[in-house]
Amino acid sequence: MIKAALSVLLVLVAVSSAKYIPKSGKRIPQTLSRGWGDQLIWAQTYEEALYWARLRNKPLMVLFHLEDCPHSLEFKKVFSEDNGIQRTLDEDFIVLNLMYETTDKHLSPDGQYVPRVIFVDPTMTVRADIIGRYSNRMYAYEPADLKLFKSNIEKAKKLLKSEL
Amino acid sequence: MIKAALSVLLVLVAVSSAKYIPKSGKRIPQTLSRGWGDQLIWAQTYEEALYWARLRNKPLMVLFHLEDCPHSLEFKKVFSEDNGIQRTLDEDFIVLNLMYETTDKHLSPDGQYVPRVIFVDPTMTVRADIIGRYSNRMYAYEPADLKLFKSNIEKAKKLLKSEL
Repeated sequence: MIKAALSVLLVLVAVSSAKYIPKSGKRIPQTLSRGWGDQLIWAQTYEEALYWARLRNKPLMVLFHLEDCPHSLEFKKVFSEDNGIQRTLDEDFIVLNLMYETTDKHLSPDGQYVPRVIFVDPTMTVRADIIGRYSNRMYAYEPADLKLFKSNIEKAKKLLKSEL
Repeated sequence: MIKAALSVLLVLVAVSSAKYIPKSGKRIPQTLSRGWGDQLIWAQTYEEALYWARLRNKPLMVLFHLEDCPHSLEFKKVFSEDNGIQRTLDEDFIVLNLMYETTDKHLSPDGQYVPRVIFVDPTMTVRADIIGRYSNRMYAYEPADLKLFKSNIEKAKKLLKSEL
């Protein structure tokens, strides 16, 4: 009798401490990196990214992408696997990846498309001068543009107003 | 000789394919949930959350918190462990947790503090009428306020403009 009561109690405890699982099945928690570099510290929002860029006096890289866009996925592969890019971004940049546009028009100098990489100087100036290879989508990159992308990262590292 | 060459080649391949690891050591990838419910689908930004709220005709819960704020952590514990809250939020709400303020003043009707929970109707109306127990911080909740919080979730579920 006591044993039975104990069993019921144990079951009750087990049920009440079970974590919520959606009807559709357990989900893998979403990461902020979304596969663009799990070891980087990603800002969540543009406001947060600007805060850190100003505070740390580091340039900001804003990367617009979509998870169902093949061009984004191709660029993500080479981007995330390039240790030089990952190290430089980790050590010298504030990074943000977004799948939804912000209300700030300065982040879409020639329109809204993906993938699109916009650099922002810690003085809060969008570096519209740092562009890729395509005249109709100036801030787009393809896997073949990795070398140009790397040289653009170096350009963005040279701040507009250097500290004295 | 061939063996030695092969070894060198293997080492080179191993080095070149090694993933980037920060000098400070490997990091655990950040999640969007930040411990507030790993099974919920969190929006990343306010813009994204509004987009989903409108599209799905669901109310939005915006939760402001800080990871080094003991009040936030206490509330997070009861919030994340309550299956009723987790299920309702998962099935009937769009959810967003933020550690940095947005530029939208409507999200801080009585100031910026944490923890703070603001509900937004899919008509884009901030539900400033859904408040907690504290007159000086009307959108703050403590673990003891869980029952009130749950009834506020139910209030937010009743949309301002119901579909015909």
